[in-house]
Amino acid sequence: MAAALRARLARPPSQPVFTLTVEVYPREVRIVVALGGNALIGPDGNATPEAQTEAVRAATPALAALAVEHELVITHGNGPQVGNLLVKNEIAAAVVPPVPLDWCGAQTQATIGTLLLDALDDEFERTGARKRLATLVTRTLVDRDDPGFQHPTKPIGRYLPFAEAKPLLDHGQTWLDHGAKGWRRVVASPEPLEVLDAPAVSALLAAGFAVVAGGGGGVPTIRTTDEHGHRRLTGVQAVIDKDLTAAVLAQALDADLLVVATDVDHAMVGYGTPDQRPLEEVTVAELRRHAADGEFGAGGMGPKVEAVCRFTGRTGHRSAITSLHRIGEAAAGTAGTRVRP
Amino acid sequence: MAAALRARLARPPSQPVFTLTVEVYPREVRIVVALGGNALIGPDGNATPEAQTEAVRAATPALAALAVEHELVITHGNGPQVGNLLVKNEIAAAVVPPVPLDWCGAQTQATIGTLLLDALDDEFERTGARKRLATLVTRTLVDRDDPGFQHPTKPIGRYLPFAEAKPLLDHGQTWLDHGAKGWRRVVASPEPLEVLDAPAVSALLAAGFAVVAGGGGGVPTIRTTDEHGHRRLTGVQAVIDKDLTAAVLAQALDADLLVVATDVDHAMVGYGTPDQRPLEEVTVAELRRHAADGEFGAGGMGPKVEAVCRFTGRTGHRSAITSLHRIGEAAAGTAGTRVRP
Repeated sequence: MAAALRARLARPPSQPVFTLTVEVYPREVRIVVALGGNALIGPDGNATPEAQTEAVRAATPALAALAVEHELVITHGNGPQVGNLLVKNEIAAAVVPPVPLDWCGAQTQATIGTLLLDALDDEFERTGARKRLATLVTRTLVDRDDPGFQHPTKPIGRYLPFAEAKPLLDHGQTWLDHGAKGWRRVVASPEPLEVLDAPAVSALLAAGFAVVAGGGGGVPTIRTTDEHGHRRLTGVQAVIDKDLTAAVLAQALDADLLVVATDVDHAMVGYGTPDQRPLEEVTVAELRRHAADGEFGAGGMGPKVEAVCRFTGRTGHRSAITSLHRIGEAAAGTAGTRVRP
Repeated sequence: MAAALRARLARPPSQPVFTLTVEVYPREVRIVVALGGNALIGPDGNATPEAQTEAVRAATPALAALAVEHELVITHGNGPQVGNLLVKNEIAAAVVPPVPLDWCGAQTQATIGTLLLDALDDEFERTGARKRLATLVTRTLVDRDDPGFQHPTKPIGRYLPFAEAKPLLDHGQTWLDHGAKGWRRVVASPEPLEVLDAPAVSALLAAGFAVVAGGGGGVPTIRTTDEHGHRRLTGVQAVIDKDLTAAVLAQALDADLLVVATDVDHAMVGYGTPDQRPLEEVTVAELRRHAADGEFGAGGMGPKVEAVCRFTGRTGHRSAITSLHRIGEAAAGTAGTRVRP
């Protein structure tokens, strides 16, 4: 009726004074990528600032491509970097008070984080991506009664002759005798229980940021109680496996995918034998069976396999292990070892 | 009519199936507090990890009280802490590649940030406050042509005899001869132009976090252009005044108040004379006049006065200079030197 009257009076169709369009999209795919500490130094193990800067720049295009299309959290290792800081501590101890291992870990979050901020911001600028990046200092809660503290097993830093290791032993550190190579410090590698700063990661993701967090597995932190009975969070000298922290963080963030980036395209079975073959699509049960058969070893691939098995086993969401330059393909399901429940 | 009919039929009043209540509040008061680096070490200048931890714990109740009532950003100095890192670099240089000054600054953001995270989280837990804290690694843009780079003036690190300073001079550093005290390094102290990570601070504030950011004035960063003509952000060896960075950050965040926390309750005029008096309520013009009369000196109070004059002069919002334990009163306008336009 009203429309007919308008047509008769040659009035234009009624226009809204104000239109509010609310577009509701499903949440973007949320991905956590764990970068190996060795991917962030020179190919020859060179950890100078220049080599670290170059390595981060080389890693940037693959990370930026994921960040632009998805919600992205980047965690990273810090083994070589933290090793350097420990050596400085030792050499300068007579002049400058040494800082504990957890402080060294925090320090590497900031230096590696700054390199990633600069490199990724430049890449977003170059490609015209409307994406921002933030780096969060991140703590990871561990159990003060974790067996790792009684029986430390994770070797860190350099080998020293006994005479030089002795004062550090006397200072309460644990060092093991490696015969001709010398003595080397071992520290606890406790289980990551909770990423204490995950809520900040979540808030930044929701605001459209890609986020660097959980570097070096997070600053190891225990809950204690002070003399008034109040909770006290305290950093503790330990090294948390960064892939296991990535699994805990990815679960807390309800990530859709965890990608462990390393220096090989796949986890392998029969490695070094004539029957060697890459794993492509695998289930958690298959991967756990291979691990039980001793296929992956404790040092390199073992913790990565454990991390993806935990994440996918607990959440039912997919994970992958692949090389840094294949993380996009791994996310798309066309490269790497892809793990399903 | 309907109500009358309901009454007649003894039916209960109509109930909504579903009530959605949207409460819209004005934004909380947003405060940026700048803590002096000396407030975060022992009273005797002791910068051991234990002394730093104690100092941060002592600063916590005043900060937590502000954080619970308002939106709060905490920036902090890092002079003593960065000095220690530089000395370690120098002593260990033959064994471990030294890292540049901007990396040392980043490192202190992470260590001081972690201490603040632990201490404030514990305080929020103790008081039942529903508040969270996050620490952001923060870069500050400076001009690569800032005159400070040609004529560095900011002394850092320790005094060394010439023989020990010589290799560092040869390595391109600038050191000045202080006669009997020895030689000491000087670096550029460029003007902070922009806090590159302010958007992340803003996103976290909006999500209800108190935020530690801009530590040590931010990681000094310049914009350069690479061989392909693309922008390249690069850390640069310099020290940015943390109070001036706090002013830039507070302006970018549209803060309502900037509080510079130091070790005295007020800025003073006639300091050390019989006419000495504290400044309480002052305008920017009055404060600038006192500064021009040389009341504040270049070392201590000068940059703090400059920072509050810039912030309040540019934004018309209030600022204050006071001691750490009076920051709450200063925010309420009952203590400290309060600056109005």
